[in-house]
Amino acid sequence: MAKREIGVGLIGFGTIGTGVVRVLREHAQSIGERLGAPLKIVRIADLDIKTDRGVKIPKGMLTADARGLINDPAVDIVVELIGGLEPARSFQLEALRAGKPVVTANKAVLSAHGIELATAAEEAGVVLGFEASVGGGIPVIRALKESVAGDRNLEVYGIVNGTCNYILTEMAAGRGEFAEVVGRAQKLGLAEADPSYDVDGLDSLHKLVVLTALAFGKVIDPKAVHVEGIRSVSGVDMAYARDFGYTIKLLAVARDTANGVEARVHPAMVPNSHLLAKVAGAFNGVCLRGRALGTSVYYGQGAGMMPTATAVVADLIEAARSVLAGQAPLVLPYGQPAASLDKARVVPMADIEHEHYIRFQLSDKPGALAKITTILASVGISIATVAQHEKPSKGAVPVVMRTHRTQEKALAKALARIAKLAEVRARPVVIRVEETLGQDH
Amino acid sequence: MAKREIGVGLIGFGTIGTGVVRVLREHAQSIGERLGAPLKIVRIADLDIKTDRGVKIPKGMLTADARGLINDPAVDIVVELIGGLEPARSFQLEALRAGKPVVTANKAVLSAHGIELATAAEEAGVVLGFEASVGGGIPVIRALKESVAGDRNLEVYGIVNGTCNYILTEMAAGRGEFAEVVGRAQKLGLAEADPSYDVDGLDSLHKLVVLTALAFGKVIDPKAVHVEGIRSVSGVDMAYARDFGYTIKLLAVARDTANGVEARVHPAMVPNSHLLAKVAGAFNGVCLRGRALGTSVYYGQGAGMMPTATAVVADLIEAARSVLAGQAPLVLPYGQPAASLDKARVVPMADIEHEHYIRFQLSDKPGALAKITTILASVGISIATVAQHEKPSKGAVPVVMRTHRTQEKALAKALARIAKLAEVRARPVVIRVEETLGQDH
Repeated sequence: MAKREIGVGLIGFGTIGTGVVRVLREHAQSIGERLGAPLKIVRIADLDIKTDRGVKIPKGMLTADARGLINDPAVDIVVELIGGLEPARSFQLEALRAGKPVVTANKAVLSAHGIELATAAEEAGVVLGFEASVGGGIPVIRALKESVAGDRNLEVYGIVNGTCNYILTEMAAGRGEFAEVVGRAQKLGLAEADPSYDVDGLDSLHKLVVLTALAFGKVIDPKAVHVEGIRSVSGVDMAYARDFGYTIKLLAVARDTANGVEARVHPAMVPNSHLLAKVAGAFNGVCLRGRALGTSVYYGQGAGMMPTATAVVADLIEAARSVLAGQAPLVLPYGQPAASLDKARVVPMADIEHEHYIRFQLSDKPGALAKITTILASVGISIATVAQHEKPSKGAVPVVMRTHRTQEKALAKALARIAKLAEVRARPVVIRVEETLGQDH
Repeated sequence: MAKREIGVGLIGFGTIGTGVVRVLREHAQSIGERLGAPLKIVRIADLDIKTDRGVKIPKGMLTADARGLINDPAVDIVVELIGGLEPARSFQLEALRAGKPVVTANKAVLSAHGIELATAAEEAGVVLGFEASVGGGIPVIRALKESVAGDRNLEVYGIVNGTCNYILTEMAAGRGEFAEVVGRAQKLGLAEADPSYDVDGLDSLHKLVVLTALAFGKVIDPKAVHVEGIRSVSGVDMAYARDFGYTIKLLAVARDTANGVEARVHPAMVPNSHLLAKVAGAFNGVCLRGRALGTSVYYGQGAGMMPTATAVVADLIEAARSVLAGQAPLVLPYGQPAASLDKARVVPMADIEHEHYIRFQLSDKPGALAKITTILASVGISIATVAQHEKPSKGAVPVVMRTHRTQEKALAKALARIAKLAEVRARPVVIRVEETLGQDH
């Protein structure tokens, strides 16, 4: 093993980039011992080369020229942390084609172009590392790629967006409704100025696509996946959930079924007995169910400067080992040749069965409930429980129901008819109840 | 990559060995796709070659000659599943010295001879895989070796013995005292005929030594570690724990401190708000705290045929990749050269501070409690709460106390003096209360 220095070039000097600089510096000695050579940042590219990030950077290390960084001979490994599709994709491809390993946290580009990028890495015989793209510092990518490589995975699901989980945790604790809590999360740096990517479920979707490829060896079209964010979750539904023994979480769920991959992102009521119900604040929890292994759970900080930087540095170490040994990595980016991943059908949401929580606002007149239950019965929906706890306010009574397992399309049909009733005073709120997570069904 | 077959030789055809045969057969196709070559059992050695394990084995594959298996040219990788120190150690060394990768679930031999075995693997340039040695199918070994390689680990702790956790879960649910539940666990195959290795904490100790080496890069002497099993845990203490908001678990704890490694195995009261309190039945949960990553948790089936076999097969795939590529593995057995691991001092239990739960059986006479509290005060132990709920039975009153943080040696001194009091009717029960898991302190 040549005792030289491994040079890292960083594209994108935001929060995670700053964390990577800090981890590499603070743990330089132990990392050097592991590798037998120092691992050092030699170049950082960012459009903003003025702002102080709180870490000292030698003059001349910063550049606005990412392409120059990629082609700098001192750069052995390229870290892409700018996010988004372009120019991230082009930067990664250029680096890989130049024979340089790439490490990234960019789930958006992986979800859209993961196969193209992995293929380029395989052709170049270099590492494409993306542990940081899902679950921050939780090593769920490596677990899927290597640790369960001999199993057949049936299900991968969990809480993969720390921002949403923070917001829902605050709301569940009665510390405000959505808009108010988002404002607080923004002040704490837990939500972006424009929080849409997180709260509308897109971040979770991109992570789900990455997990699905690793867990099942199947590529799904993100556009075919049902995605609902958390904007419509309200304190009143959280209170009902609590009464029923559930916690509302934003879940990303993928199941490998005979009819295709069931993949979906939406708020759901999770039984309080499930470990995911205990995942609070900005933490993440990912559950994996395999035929041989059964259920395993990975829990930790799913975001934040230092946790995510840990994942980037783990990939850097893997890449550096390969560079130092002058060997191609033995494990491919997806744990199997990118060409061997199958394009899979996504099961339409309309065909999926759930128990449902439904909250109606009905006018306080006799017969309203009868009309609704009649319509539900006419499409074959069976009701498990009905609750009408509160006193009417402004002439409207909240009525909460829980259905037995019902196909989404039957429910949609019934709700379209119910919407036309004069007695219905607001759009009904529907939240799926996850009673079969981690079970054959 | 040469498209040949990789032959696996299995030494030890018990439960896990049978699971390995099943996983390799049932998932042969997907494993073959990952590797680009079939991975097959070619030889199985066991002293008992008569018993039917429920899997079909071709005639001639079974042998009682383990050394013959190791030297069989058709065997590319040796799996050692016989457990114990010898001949397991010799078999592993012979295989490694013959240039054959070794995969094992044997925490006893790793805890005693891990450095010797890892050194032999490094010299031969082959894999020594032991993912199955801790946490069954939970990929905690690989997480420590690779995923947190850039972090500085501060703490690793958890529930690592499924047998004990099953017994404690049953007892906490009121389904019998220790002896009765052990009998049931034996009938269910969850406890050995002689359950000592599990219930006396030795299994947890061996796993803790493996975790400590991986997490901190430090080798500790198992004989220096304080180990208490679960034989003395009783239903009455479980009931008190529940009243106070705790669950009694057998914990293995290691902390990297300035004074050495704090390492210990004993029953402890875990706050119900901690994820470990939710780990029920035969499941395991391992928590890791790193400076950058913070706390992460790994949860799953810590034992059993198929989960543990999954971990063995993950290591087999890693070893097979290296054999097929004709390359030494890039990651060493401990994630760093075995020679770079430091021998570390184990902090004496006497010097460690805890809050303690203590249950006394006192004679029902005035003054007994005063004498005890006077002794405790004389060695500087401060009492947080005292409870005396129940009516006396046979003239003895149970008195339950909780101390503030107290050094073990101060408590031992006080208890020695308290034992001499005529009013004390039975040996006091002491259980540590873990209030600082996952915190700086």
